[in-house]
Amino acid sequence: MQLYTYFRSSASYRVRIALNLKGLSYESVPVHLLKHGGEQLSPDYRKLNPEALVPALVDDGMVLTQSMAIIEYLEETHPAPPLLPATPIDRAYVRAIAQAIACDIHPINNLRVLRYLVRELKVSEDDKNAWYRHWCQLGLAAIEATLARDPRVGKFCFGDTPMLADCLLVPQLFNAQRLNCDLSQMPTIMRINAACLQLDAFLNAAPDQQPDAE
Amino acid sequence: MQLYTYFRSSASYRVRIALNLKGLSYESVPVHLLKHGGEQLSPDYRKLNPEALVPALVDDGMVLTQSMAIIEYLEETHPAPPLLPATPIDRAYVRAIAQAIACDIHPINNLRVLRYLVRELKVSEDDKNAWYRHWCQLGLAAIEATLARDPRVGKFCFGDTPMLADCLLVPQLFNAQRLNCDLSQMPTIMRINAACLQLDAFLNAAPDQQPDAE
Repeated sequence: MQLYTYFRSSASYRVRIALNLKGLSYESVPVHLLKHGGEQLSPDYRKLNPEALVPALVDDGMVLTQSMAIIEYLEETHPAPPLLPATPIDRAYVRAIAQAIACDIHPINNLRVLRYLVRELKVSEDDKNAWYRHWCQLGLAAIEATLARDPRVGKFCFGDTPMLADCLLVPQLFNAQRLNCDLSQMPTIMRINAACLQLDAFLNAAPDQQPDAE
Repeated sequence: MQLYTYFRSSASYRVRIALNLKGLSYESVPVHLLKHGGEQLSPDYRKLNPEALVPALVDDGMVLTQSMAIIEYLEETHPAPPLLPATPIDRAYVRAIAQAIACDIHPINNLRVLRYLVRELKVSEDDKNAWYRHWCQLGLAAIEATLARDPRVGKFCFGDTPMLADCLLVPQLFNAQRLNCDLSQMPTIMRINAACLQLDAFLNAAPDQQPDAE
């Protein structure tokens, strides 16, 4: 498998964690989101992925896009260890936490959106950072409220083994900390993040461990 | 089942289509996103869904949130008719189209984001509408490019029966048309949308058919 990835891309980071948790080896193909006017926008990369976003995974010559769809594919093709629980209601709980990050936090703070704010709407650096922290803190606070009351939470978001939701949580926390979000009211999230960062699967997926890290 | 819904909510619309396609009856519980300062922000609704977003589905007393997680749950608990294809690679294709809408178009144009642009960043009405059309057209153009070249496309996004991707596409098109997005270069998407709108499952899920429609 080849993973088209950028070391700092949060969506790529999720897939790297999932691949590592499942013990799958892969080749990293770096796509630099800033250099050369954005390599993801090149005609060659668009041929692979018309969305012009990372990650993309190539498995047996077939191209997969969208981090959540890729992880569900890995789950179906390599079921052990599972990244989703056994029952539909528990799977829905894990998927909902993952989607809350994938839909309601990350895209609003993506590189291209922040650029639009600055370049098209002439938003100041301070207002751009306030925007980032607003959506990140709002979204994480809702997840904290969900996790804090749910008896299914264990060492990780669901029980005592890392699953899909944890694959999304750790990259989002990495970004939140990089942008100085206020995480002081999020003890459950911080505890789960710390537990994940004890594991090689998470550590080896981190931005600074990637071949294209700067 | 009870669906907490708002007639114009795109994410609720998706779930209504999925419920209809599966022939499942449900009770609509309206949550007005504009009245009373936003009913989704009320303490009672937050108890149900700390994210303070619609939809939420209650099944057998259990609360499910996030439209994509809800539809995957319906697929697992009521497999017929299927909303995902049989093989992992085809499922990944259908999920990727759905996620491209759920992650990369819809959240950036959500009501709360548009409000932040206007209230916090003092963006003009024209610039707000340009923002809306920019993300909608960019995202749909990428999906059009994907669909236009994929041999799996049939009458619908995958083959000749409506699936998960179609449940997402129709509500996004409804919004795109309401906001006067330029869809002239998207013949595949428009053809699929028209095919969906021949079916009762889609027609009955439309905003103007809901009990809380205005």
